[in-house]
Amino acid sequence: MDEKRLQNIPLRNIHIHDQFWDKYIGLVESVILPFEWDLINDRVPGAEKSYCMQNFRVAGGLEKGTHQGTVFQDTDVAKWLEAAAYSLAKKPDQELEKTADAAIDLIIGAQEPDGYLNTYNTILGKGRFYDLFEGHELYTAGHMIEAAVAYAEATGKRKFVNSCAKLADYLCSVFGPEEGKIHGYPGHPEIELALYKLYKYTGKQDYLRLAQYFLDVRGQQPCYFLSESNYQNGTFIFKEFKDFGMDYCQADRPLAEQDKAEGHAVRAVYLYSGMADVAAETGDERMLRQCEMLWENIVRRKMYVTGSIGSAAYGERFTTDYDLPNNTNYSESCATIGLAMFSNRLFQITKDGKYMDVVELALYNTLLSGIALDGRHFFYVNPLECVPEVAEHNPTMRHVKTERQLWFGCACCPPNITRTLASMGNYMFHVGGNTAYLNLYLAGEIEAPLPEGTMRMTVEADYPATGRIRICLHPEKSRQDAEIALRLPAYSAGRYQLLVNGQRISVAKDDAGHEENRRGIDSGERAVYRKGYLYLNRRWQDGDLIELDLDVAFRFVYGNPKVRDDIGKVCIMRGPSVYCFEEADNGAYLAGCRIDTSAPICTEENPDLLGGTLCAVVSGSRIDYRSVGSDEPLYSAKRPVYQPCHLKAIPYACWNNRGKGEMQVWMREE
Amino acid sequence: MDEKRLQNIPLRNIHIHDQFWDKYIGLVESVILPFEWDLINDRVPGAEKSYCMQNFRVAGGLEKGTHQGTVFQDTDVAKWLEAAAYSLAKKPDQELEKTADAAIDLIIGAQEPDGYLNTYNTILGKGRFYDLFEGHELYTAGHMIEAAVAYAEATGKRKFVNSCAKLADYLCSVFGPEEGKIHGYPGHPEIELALYKLYKYTGKQDYLRLAQYFLDVRGQQPCYFLSESNYQNGTFIFKEFKDFGMDYCQADRPLAEQDKAEGHAVRAVYLYSGMADVAAETGDERMLRQCEMLWENIVRRKMYVTGSIGSAAYGERFTTDYDLPNNTNYSESCATIGLAMFSNRLFQITKDGKYMDVVELALYNTLLSGIALDGRHFFYVNPLECVPEVAEHNPTMRHVKTERQLWFGCACCPPNITRTLASMGNYMFHVGGNTAYLNLYLAGEIEAPLPEGTMRMTVEADYPATGRIRICLHPEKSRQDAEIALRLPAYSAGRYQLLVNGQRISVAKDDAGHEENRRGIDSGERAVYRKGYLYLNRRWQDGDLIELDLDVAFRFVYGNPKVRDDIGKVCIMRGPSVYCFEEADNGAYLAGCRIDTSAPICTEENPDLLGGTLCAVVSGSRIDYRSVGSDEPLYSAKRPVYQPCHLKAIPYACWNNRGKGEMQVWMREE
Repeated sequence: MDEKRLQNIPLRNIHIHDQFWDKYIGLVESVILPFEWDLINDRVPGAEKSYCMQNFRVAGGLEKGTHQGTVFQDTDVAKWLEAAAYSLAKKPDQELEKTADAAIDLIIGAQEPDGYLNTYNTILGKGRFYDLFEGHELYTAGHMIEAAVAYAEATGKRKFVNSCAKLADYLCSVFGPEEGKIHGYPGHPEIELALYKLYKYTGKQDYLRLAQYFLDVRGQQPCYFLSESNYQNGTFIFKEFKDFGMDYCQADRPLAEQDKAEGHAVRAVYLYSGMADVAAETGDERMLRQCEMLWENIVRRKMYVTGSIGSAAYGERFTTDYDLPNNTNYSESCATIGLAMFSNRLFQITKDGKYMDVVELALYNTLLSGIALDGRHFFYVNPLECVPEVAEHNPTMRHVKTERQLWFGCACCPPNITRTLASMGNYMFHVGGNTAYLNLYLAGEIEAPLPEGTMRMTVEADYPATGRIRICLHPEKSRQDAEIALRLPAYSAGRYQLLVNGQRISVAKDDAGHEENRRGIDSGERAVYRKGYLYLNRRWQDGDLIELDLDVAFRFVYGNPKVRDDIGKVCIMRGPSVYCFEEADNGAYLAGCRIDTSAPICTEENPDLLGGTLCAVVSGSRIDYRSVGSDEPLYSAKRPVYQPCHLKAIPYACWNNRGKGEMQVWMREE
Repeated sequence: MDEKRLQNIPLRNIHIHDQFWDKYIGLVESVILPFEWDLINDRVPGAEKSYCMQNFRVAGGLEKGTHQGTVFQDTDVAKWLEAAAYSLAKKPDQELEKTADAAIDLIIGAQEPDGYLNTYNTILGKGRFYDLFEGHELYTAGHMIEAAVAYAEATGKRKFVNSCAKLADYLCSVFGPEEGKIHGYPGHPEIELALYKLYKYTGKQDYLRLAQYFLDVRGQQPCYFLSESNYQNGTFIFKEFKDFGMDYCQADRPLAEQDKAEGHAVRAVYLYSGMADVAAETGDERMLRQCEMLWENIVRRKMYVTGSIGSAAYGERFTTDYDLPNNTNYSESCATIGLAMFSNRLFQITKDGKYMDVVELALYNTLLSGIALDGRHFFYVNPLECVPEVAEHNPTMRHVKTERQLWFGCACCPPNITRTLASMGNYMFHVGGNTAYLNLYLAGEIEAPLPEGTMRMTVEADYPATGRIRICLHPEKSRQDAEIALRLPAYSAGRYQLLVNGQRISVAKDDAGHEENRRGIDSGERAVYRKGYLYLNRRWQDGDLIELDLDVAFRFVYGNPKVRDDIGKVCIMRGPSVYCFEEADNGAYLAGCRIDTSAPICTEENPDLLGGTLCAVVSGSRIDYRSVGSDEPLYSAKRPVYQPCHLKAIPYACWNNRGKGEMQVWMREE
């Protein structure tokens, strides 16, 4: 473990003005937050009812009624508040803050005197913590705590965080190794990482200890969940839970024995995020190695090329190594967000760029696939291949929506996407010691608080449309000593150019690293390459210019041949962006198309398409469906007839913004 | 509609001695019937409990207890009895008949005084016919009736059929258009075709009328099922039924408006079989056209190359046209049997060989895939592609078993396979007027009762290992006038040879037909080709020899390009037999293999393999997995490396008889 975990910098210090990301981030304040507020208040015609705010009013005694929605319905409000907090952190907004304050008052009004906070149980009064396997009480508490910490950090107002600290204190009094306490743990992890956040915010060790306890006790045998009354009686909240093994929620064995990612994907990556937090904080090297092993298992065996995870809908789960079907997969938006959270933590702890490569993949592809360009429609499930006619008629794909929805009865994903978009700064940028890490190349301005003074950096980029990154530095002090670490994405390794003030910089490899950028004029100055980052250590003057050119040229990507579903196929990427083929550009029967990978991938700029999109055009061939009569038999000796064609691809992130139609990422190779 | 429906001939007149089929049919009496008897009596260690006979003892008051198993558990006994009846029809067996008589006594002992017969409702006493959508009472009654008719025909004993006639009389008194009667119909069709059988056996018009009523009222709007109390109260017997639309059981619209096969595949084909029976009997041309349309929709849009149907597990149902996934499909054994039943009826009614082509496909492939060569293990679900590691870990395929099972809690398939094997004669052979139809070329002897005398025929064949069929005729009378109709399978159209007594016969086409077999020595005698049959009309002498040589050479078969799942792939067939590739012969990662279709398919005789099997060996190439390191990334620019190889295929019918392993029917084409 590296000596110190890298830190976020305040979101108010990061100003994003990026052509690609502004299409989404720009909507957070103006569209998404108000829209989602209306949704959780059940004011959007045509959307599924959420009952979120109503539940709080009922629990707080302001309204008569019962609880409606899922057991974890409260979390939609928490995630909305967390997103609002990030937004307020970046830019004050009295109206939004007033709304948030009112929501917080409603929440606190629903809190019980001892700190317990959960509208489902408060309203229904069936008792607390009797079904940790399914009940989501600790999961809900976790989201409340995350929101409260974010709100306190954003606004300085401590009312909400104090209320959540009271909730956490109550949890500390109920759970733990001591006799008389519950020796259980959450069916759905989340509280662990939240308690870590609260511990970091308050400094109170109890919260870290409880997080650690939840990790230590998890999966101990005999499994706690099996002893719970609902499980014993077969009276499940979610009927399918009776079929789920304990691996579904990572409780089939102690965490120390879990070396493969198993079960429900969101639970897994939320759990692993908490494990990484606690391991780093307590210096638990063994648990950290385990996190790394789990991450490797995901990224080398169980992740889609779009950075999504969860190969099966039933159980919304990981399946087995290399099993990555493209049209029946779950690939939940929340799971991708969790994978980004987990990877981001491992980067902060290890400073290894491979983790940030996965963050980038997840954010540039599946995170954005989850939201429409209008900011009002969402995907929960993100297939890599969709034929609407089939997905709508074959119940094997009944979890797949062929168009983004306004909202979902179980709406974990939309506000999760929102809070992630609102906090992109926490993925883009970190500081540690005298080093400022630039992870993601969104254009904008950053004021990085470094020990010798604030380093203001202006980033010019239109990534990944181009790989041209220009960083202009404005140190607080003249000749300020600082190290700037620039991420060199794995796809561009060995193919980049680095200049400072117009002078080419040669890069020395570290012990494990590569040696690159040696050619050309050598300024005498050196950068060091270490685990995916280029470290530039010098005394910076105002106006110093770093020029980094990455190779984002379109490329063909193959799946590992052990991924049966991708055999014989190829996909197209540009930098971290996966491209896909849509019916809107290419007509139907994409399955009948083949790509000629010996021909170049041409670039086509479409300023009017999807808010300005760089498209890829490839050569290939396709079955001539005019030669296939409607009376043709299903099976015959007739070989299909192919015709040459051109095919056009758009970023996967933008698919399904032009109505319903076929989409395919992996295309057959000619 | 042709003037008269073709008739079965008594099973005792058909003696099968066929190298290929004896492996299965030979087991019916010696292994399967005794084994299944033990199963339904819960005497097989390791098998799931059936409770079948126990339920009858409890319902009859012979034993204390409650009902166990599904609502239609009785049908396993009925199907066992039906199979036993066919077996007894072919060959008397005192022991078996004694066992069957005892079972029948138990059944009759469980019948209520008014004729009602159903252990589930008799034991639980919740009332009758209150949940036709799910309750399976009429389905169960149908199977009882089928068994009783078969038993009476086999043994001449009328006790069981009288008891079932009483049941049918009771149903006639309860259901019907008259005021005061129930205007409902079965959620699971079957009673329709059973009532038709009982009508044919007894001559009682009421049964035909009730069958017709069930067809007439089906799907009338508002749908009857929606008015039932369980549906209204949401108290479903099968929890998933609440998600099923009325199309699931072909009740979303009147039958006259149903022109595409929809919903649960078994229900559909059982229903269509009853429709065909009633249409033919009542001369309802419109309903018959509808049957033909539904059949065409299945066979041209929704049938696997193996003759199986049901593309989705959830709802065990048809999905949409051309949607035929190979590894997530249901392809239930019972559905294939139902398709054979439906097709057989349409053939009997229309004399069009295309229906018999489908019967042959279904019986030679999926029927046999459902049963192991030991006669004791069964598949319910018949995928065309299976990777055990994936099927066992990806819950999308949780319906797929990777090895045949001893029995199933819901065990509709095993006894259904048994009754079909035991009654193969009803598919092989029909008579109509002075014509004897040879449909399937199993070796054996047939005594066909024709108007001018019995025609004994000895069929020599080892089909489809060879296409050489030799039929020696022994008419009862000298120079007996008779027409022999020989099926010319579609795959051999234009490629066959027909001789009588060594003289080549030229074949005249009929109005719609082909003109073939013109080359070579012409005996002057002609055959007529009409809709898939070669009609030989002459005066036959004892010892006359018909020689038919079909072209069963291995061939490559392509899917219609609208079947996305088969694009770029090819499969191998020999006659009606689909071949498949198994890990046992070819190693793992069949998905990484490609076939060179420009190279010939070689024949390999394996006398020791699976009881003697003709294998196909093809050339091709496969990914060299030794070049794929375990640390290789999931996605990269690295193109897979292929190596030339040979691949061996065995009949799909015999797959999974050598332990668990990968299997694949459709292979990528090089």
